[in-house]
Amino acid sequence: MRKTLITIKDVAAASGVHASTVSRALNDETRDMVSKPVADKVLAVARKLGYLRNPLASGLRTRRSHTIGVLIPDLTNPVFPPIIRGIERTLAAAGYVAVLADSDSDERNAHTIVENLLGRQVDGLILATAYRKDPVVDKCIEHGIPLVLINRVVDKIRVAAVVNDDDFGIRLALEHLLALGHRQIAFVGGPQNTSTGYYRYLAFLAATKEHGLKIDRSMAVNGKSFSEAEGKNCLLKILDEHGKRFTAVVAANDLLALGCFDALTARGMRCPDDVSVSGFNHMPFVDRFSPSLTTVHIPHDELGVQSAKLLLERIRNPEDPPRTIKLKPSMVLGGSTRALAARDVRPIKSAGSGKARPRAVS
Amino acid sequence: MRKTLITIKDVAAASGVHASTVSRALNDETRDMVSKPVADKVLAVARKLGYLRNPLASGLRTRRSHTIGVLIPDLTNPVFPPIIRGIERTLAAAGYVAVLADSDSDERNAHTIVENLLGRQVDGLILATAYRKDPVVDKCIEHGIPLVLINRVVDKIRVAAVVNDDDFGIRLALEHLLALGHRQIAFVGGPQNTSTGYYRYLAFLAATKEHGLKIDRSMAVNGKSFSEAEGKNCLLKILDEHGKRFTAVVAANDLLALGCFDALTARGMRCPDDVSVSGFNHMPFVDRFSPSLTTVHIPHDELGVQSAKLLLERIRNPEDPPRTIKLKPSMVLGGSTRALAARDVRPIKSAGSGKARPRAVS
Repeated sequence: MRKTLITIKDVAAASGVHASTVSRALNDETRDMVSKPVADKVLAVARKLGYLRNPLASGLRTRRSHTIGVLIPDLTNPVFPPIIRGIERTLAAAGYVAVLADSDSDERNAHTIVENLLGRQVDGLILATAYRKDPVVDKCIEHGIPLVLINRVVDKIRVAAVVNDDDFGIRLALEHLLALGHRQIAFVGGPQNTSTGYYRYLAFLAATKEHGLKIDRSMAVNGKSFSEAEGKNCLLKILDEHGKRFTAVVAANDLLALGCFDALTARGMRCPDDVSVSGFNHMPFVDRFSPSLTTVHIPHDELGVQSAKLLLERIRNPEDPPRTIKLKPSMVLGGSTRALAARDVRPIKSAGSGKARPRAVS
Repeated sequence: MRKTLITIKDVAAASGVHASTVSRALNDETRDMVSKPVADKVLAVARKLGYLRNPLASGLRTRRSHTIGVLIPDLTNPVFPPIIRGIERTLAAAGYVAVLADSDSDERNAHTIVENLLGRQVDGLILATAYRKDPVVDKCIEHGIPLVLINRVVDKIRVAAVVNDDDFGIRLALEHLLALGHRQIAFVGGPQNTSTGYYRYLAFLAATKEHGLKIDRSMAVNGKSFSEAEGKNCLLKILDEHGKRFTAVVAANDLLALGCFDALTARGMRCPDDVSVSGFNHMPFVDRFSPSLTTVHIPHDELGVQSAKLLLERIRNPEDPPRTIKLKPSMVLGGSTRALAARDVRPIKSAGSGKARPRAVS
């Protein structure tokens, strides 16, 4: 799996000079020991072959930097810090240090950061930034760096990953609302180019169908990002089209759910009196919100711990086939969802599955 | 200011061999071109002199890695992400990448991480982890790495820093409570080995005295950390000793303030009905809390932007005397503070200063 790294000896062979000359030419401090034309030629060949000038990087096989790069899409989303804590603690116990970077949900940022980390001596990468099609992930695989995806996965390629069972989580949220008597249920989702956005949306469509609910497709709107602003936008769109034709919202993430609170406030409606809202992630502080948020709990620490362990495993055994670990979410009840009055509860036509069942994420 | 870096030539002189031999001996790939006794000797000398084996690191003067290490004490404190965003954006505009690390408020962690970053090729460091006496800061200064402290400063040594005017902020909170009629005011502070913990505490003592309030010293309790748990502990201690003898609390940080909410709940009291609580930092989401938190706003983005700019300035001009930039906080009103009924308001004996005035932090 690991791409063979270009060594000084490869550069020497391609340049037609001795390895020690290459070594001098590539080192800022010793370059003046070599004639300028030779130095220029060696540098050109090294560049062409893709030689990484950092000797620690080219010495990766035999020498560990004991540094792991961790890339997250949005540090201001409070769900990530407790995940990162789990990563850091597990890596520290194994003698590794995590360096974090925040891509601000920008693929070019992610690319720059990963290039930077690869050019230095990280022993592996944990990416929470994956898109379903992701050139950054492709690049890491091509480079051969030990890699673990967390939370999100890519389509088609097998990459080691630790994720939540998104399908199961959405079913939990939906069945909680059904149990409270809600039948007209809207959905506010995330970007469809991420696995979490895509599979949570598919899960909502599949689960409502299985439960015999008739959900107008325009009652399920996906935002451009997992953010409060997009949650508000999406629910406003639904409110503008459907008015009060729904009594509950399944949001695909807690920030989206907070945005739903804002949309309701903007329309003079109240949560949960007028509309119940459930979130996803159980990010810190949601129990302190007004109202406290009903949400799908994901095991933050365990996500971090398992991804770090999986990465350490891949560093030791890079040739092993990549594994995906899927963790089970659970329901956390807050004040943002409430039972409909009995007179408002309509029977469901189909019996439905009755209980959330695990399903493959992809 | 910058410590002279040990070069290959220094190692060569001290080992009594040619620089090219040192170069070969220090490089994993070329070491076998040198006899083992010579290689061992060179490595021992290099270690003794403190030669950094990474050539990019020893080439710092002429070559930039364009990577900045950013160390924060607690990633789960939501005040840090928006500060980090300001840092990252400013660094990115200058072509630099930030690598973050979280010390989990542990000085040994901070030490390990900084060692790791120094051994790699970071061009500078931004530390939010400083203790008033801090061997990690000492180490950075000794190393000569461009350094900026953010939020917290050290005693005695002059280090470039971007901080809040803590004294001014505490006065704002106190005077807000005075204006609402509160006279019996407790204080829940942070660790006294940090400048923020120490100067906010001193500010409370000084400002209450200037305003003619008689504050029993045991009504001001400092926690071991800036955390919800410690906030709760401290206020429970005050409640156990003084019962309901106070009507308001100045907390030295928002997490401490949330802990105060918990302490009041644990004693069957309500905020703000029984006790008003004000925080410090204006961390994200406090406006969504129940009750929303009255707090001292610090300019998060500006803290990040200014610290990144100051660091870039120090990288360009490392010999310039270090500057401290002090930013002005402001008051954000939430639902956690309320006016006392007029009949409960006692006159203040002294006129006090009437208005929060800027004061030196140290």
